[in-house]
Amino acid sequence: MRELSRRSLLRGSALAATSASLAAIAVESAAARQASFSRVIDLSHPIVEDFPTYWGGKGLEIEPVWQVDRDGFALNIWHLWEHTGTHLDAPRHYYANGLSLEAIPASDLVVPLAIIDITSRVVDNEDAEVLPQDILAWEARNGPLPAGCCAVMRSGWDSRIADPLRYRNVDAAGTMHFPGFGLEAAAFLAEQRQVTGIGSDTLSLEYGPSRDFPVHLLWLGAGHWGLENLTNLADVPESGATLVVGAPKVSSATGGPSRVFALVA
Amino acid sequence: MRELSRRSLLRGSALAATSASLAAIAVESAAARQASFSRVIDLSHPIVEDFPTYWGGKGLEIEPVWQVDRDGFALNIWHLWEHTGTHLDAPRHYYANGLSLEAIPASDLVVPLAIIDITSRVVDNEDAEVLPQDILAWEARNGPLPAGCCAVMRSGWDSRIADPLRYRNVDAAGTMHFPGFGLEAAAFLAEQRQVTGIGSDTLSLEYGPSRDFPVHLLWLGAGHWGLENLTNLADVPESGATLVVGAPKVSSATGGPSRVFALVA
Repeated sequence: MRELSRRSLLRGSALAATSASLAAIAVESAAARQASFSRVIDLSHPIVEDFPTYWGGKGLEIEPVWQVDRDGFALNIWHLWEHTGTHLDAPRHYYANGLSLEAIPASDLVVPLAIIDITSRVVDNEDAEVLPQDILAWEARNGPLPAGCCAVMRSGWDSRIADPLRYRNVDAAGTMHFPGFGLEAAAFLAEQRQVTGIGSDTLSLEYGPSRDFPVHLLWLGAGHWGLENLTNLADVPESGATLVVGAPKVSSATGGPSRVFALVA
Repeated sequence: MRELSRRSLLRGSALAATSASLAAIAVESAAARQASFSRVIDLSHPIVEDFPTYWGGKGLEIEPVWQVDRDGFALNIWHLWEHTGTHLDAPRHYYANGLSLEAIPASDLVVPLAIIDITSRVVDNEDAEVLPQDILAWEARNGPLPAGCCAVMRSGWDSRIADPLRYRNVDAAGTMHFPGFGLEAAAFLAEQRQVTGIGSDTLSLEYGPSRDFPVHLLWLGAGHWGLENLTNLADVPESGATLVVGAPKVSSATGGPSRVFALVA
């Protein structure tokens, strides 16, 4: 009951918040931010036609149109399912009136990055979840989560990407198993911290066995975005980096394959 | 003759340069770079289905697959022509063995940004070109072009985007008219400066009337990338900003729609 009432509350506030007011808030918070860097880490997987997808079907087909030897230059058509590869989930993914991909302001796509490392718990539990105490432990080491940041789960799951069967990790009953954000941690970030996005190095924001997507509903319902299928998180310090989300600016999209960088001092 | 011999020379060197050696060079130059910023400017147009394309045909069709009211969440398929919207041209666009989109290293996509402003000449000449003296005038004001930078033409043409007919600007004989880089300026940047990319706020790297694409052949043949259909360049200082090219990491692609940001002090 408590969960259901939170869901409807958040669903309501997502509908009320127009993209204009969200953009105004974002510009304000971005103006106060100062960052510097000397190195760039690529947090994106290459997208191939058989990149594993959450739904288990095709995510990309590449169709050649023009070719250099015949036409003097080359161009392909991508037949691309929005939530393929390293990609962003916009509120529109779960809310018909939620913010769509192109409406997320640029200043919300360049934000401080906090890496929440749960790799040690994944060794014994493929369904490990980010818990509120993981975030509190991060803050005990690094100070409060920076305003407007993205909190990313590092589970080490990206090392399985070369083997799509192990990455999707479906059991005999048809249930997937991989780590993700727990509902309590997502609610803590939405309600008690000022966080712009969350991200994971697995196929979803929430763990594999999830059936009714409570973390997606809560997080996207609060007007935030999520990132899935990140990689190379071991190369980024847990605090101090800047995340840049190169989300394609496709109109009305529910999300899309993104080039994601960490800028590191 | 001189032009043809330069072309074959550059075509040869593009084939010789492997992506591994390019990546090694990039890491080295990136390590020396230090940047800081407090503001983010979005240099990307929103991509709609009727976004004007160079070839004059469709560039994007969005096909809904799942919908929130029926399925609980939403997802579309994009049928997307690679060179649509604000996008990157990879060497593969003109060279079958040139570097493809996903092989461009991250450190080559986060680079210093130099804005070459030719808006005053566009008033009297829709086919205005960037000339070597425009670059020398920039250097007289700002010092040498920074190593590894991207040199972007600002012509003001992006103000026409709401009217695709005026943006493509085809005359009675079927020839397009809009500004771009001249061949001499591109050769100057390729041979006498260390520049990673060039960019424009029009449909092409070179001016509208071009028929045989000498600037594309020279620039991409030298192993560099280009950006087309940039916008909001008036908001960026001509020197000192950092360009971030959020190019999608689609394997074997000849280019692709990119989210492009300027990070400004």
